[in-house]
Amino acid sequence: MKLLTVGSVGFDTIKTPFGSVKSTLGGSATHFCLAARYFTVPCLISAVGTDFTGIHSKKLLARKIDLSGLEKVKGKTMAWGAEYGYDLNTRNVTFTHLNVLDTYEPKVPKKLQNTEMVFLSAVSSTQQKQVLGQMKRAKFIAWDTISYYIHNDRKGLMKNLGDVDCCFINDTEARQLTKEHNLLKAAKGIMGMMGKKGTLIIKQGEHGCLMFQGSKIFHLPGYPLEDVIDPTGAGDSFAGGFLGYLAKTNDFSWPNLKKACVAGSVMASFCCEQLGTKGLLNLSSNKIKHRIKEFKTLTHFEG
Amino acid sequence: MKLLTVGSVGFDTIKTPFGSVKSTLGGSATHFCLAARYFTVPCLISAVGTDFTGIHSKKLLARKIDLSGLEKVKGKTMAWGAEYGYDLNTRNVTFTHLNVLDTYEPKVPKKLQNTEMVFLSAVSSTQQKQVLGQMKRAKFIAWDTISYYIHNDRKGLMKNLGDVDCCFINDTEARQLTKEHNLLKAAKGIMGMMGKKGTLIIKQGEHGCLMFQGSKIFHLPGYPLEDVIDPTGAGDSFAGGFLGYLAKTNDFSWPNLKKACVAGSVMASFCCEQLGTKGLLNLSSNKIKHRIKEFKTLTHFEG
Repeated sequence: MKLLTVGSVGFDTIKTPFGSVKSTLGGSATHFCLAARYFTVPCLISAVGTDFTGIHSKKLLARKIDLSGLEKVKGKTMAWGAEYGYDLNTRNVTFTHLNVLDTYEPKVPKKLQNTEMVFLSAVSSTQQKQVLGQMKRAKFIAWDTISYYIHNDRKGLMKNLGDVDCCFINDTEARQLTKEHNLLKAAKGIMGMMGKKGTLIIKQGEHGCLMFQGSKIFHLPGYPLEDVIDPTGAGDSFAGGFLGYLAKTNDFSWPNLKKACVAGSVMASFCCEQLGTKGLLNLSSNKIKHRIKEFKTLTHFEG
Repeated sequence: MKLLTVGSVGFDTIKTPFGSVKSTLGGSATHFCLAARYFTVPCLISAVGTDFTGIHSKKLLARKIDLSGLEKVKGKTMAWGAEYGYDLNTRNVTFTHLNVLDTYEPKVPKKLQNTEMVFLSAVSSTQQKQVLGQMKRAKFIAWDTISYYIHNDRKGLMKNLGDVDCCFINDTEARQLTKEHNLLKAAKGIMGMMGKKGTLIIKQGEHGCLMFQGSKIFHLPGYPLEDVIDPTGAGDSFAGGFLGYLAKTNDFSWPNLKKACVAGSVMASFCCEQLGTKGLLNLSSNKIKHRIKEFKTLTHFEG
């Protein structure tokens, strides 16, 4: 099953205690597609500026990401900068220039309008809606956002939430969106916005994730890493692994959603081990399978 | 199997956003014994002052805790006060008066010197050692500490660590003890202090715990709670459930250590739901069993 996503493609300038990188290819949709492509063909809907060259698109095309929905328009590609503190848990966003994404109106190419799985990533609620409006056979719609939009466009986001099957959000954003500190109460609040059938995944960074559906709860820890270099894009990589796995298996049952969490956590772990998208670029399927297997040893007990 | 512990017994004054309590029976050994007693007979080694009355000992005796090693000496019982912030993750210790515990020299009653399981809880390294010196058939020795002793008695603590089979420590303390931020690296550092056969449990508050033994790792999340009222003593309750379960089953294999983590997490969850020790006082074994069972649904996946 194909998997279409709308999100940001941009240039990231990142500084962590373990290294730094300037204007490297990044953005929510980039991380998402680079993780999802190990499981399915991701189709990227976004816009870049004239400073986005063949070198950049080659990086994505070489990994079989469908770029027919990536528009090149006059102006500059989105740019984002961040600095991380020693423990990598504190992040200071130094700049966000939406540039061409600011006024972008997503257009889904005709041949992709029948895609059954859709991931609405960190763009405005209007842009998320514009994409959904063009999809003709969407069967499983997933949603994510960032603090910036919760702060500036709470109502629009909450309205979109009513139309989705699956919501990804991190713990801080879940608290921000619901104004509720306790995560279980925050989860109930978000599930209320989503309707009864929704699946909610609260990402907890190094602590893993909690998944909710009706009264069911599942927890998966983060993969234990000795060298965390750069957590940028880990949440999008999680979503890429999760939805990529679902697209590959075409099974949306609760037991398979749990397995999708494992795939997501594994992709997030690879993302964190190197700067920018580097950790996602050249993985072997054996390396991925091995980590997936290790999760069972890490979490299961008898009796 | 019986289970002996040395630790603090004191009066806690606690303020959380959800309630407050003044001079209530608390301390590491109190929480530990109140959790362990659902699985075995805990024997408490500690000292209290003349302000510790029959009402207090009755609370413990009624729950079949062996108080033959609880000395009553001239002076005041230890007193400790803390205030928690809104998210319960930030704690401000308002006072710590060791009082009678300051100069206390633990004496293990003769009939308890053959106890095979020993838990050295938050007392000084000298007091921990004094207890160990009196044990004649100790087969499984577990160890815990608090920030206060790491700061003031790092060397003594590290020396004791070499003699124990099992170490409990929370994530902040693990980082403090090893001066290493990454938890896996900190774990390796502590295991190095313990010797090869040791089992290490890093407690992560609401995020659960990580258990290490040689190259093996196990993770268990915290039990998801909608109402966390007071986390005081949660770590000691975890240790009580964990070691109580081992004492009951007399099985120190890796698979059973995992099940002990579940018992520990369940006891910690009950502890957090009410102020002070209240959540531990009157539990039914059915309530405990039910939560233990729920952990499997929460963490297991197929394939």
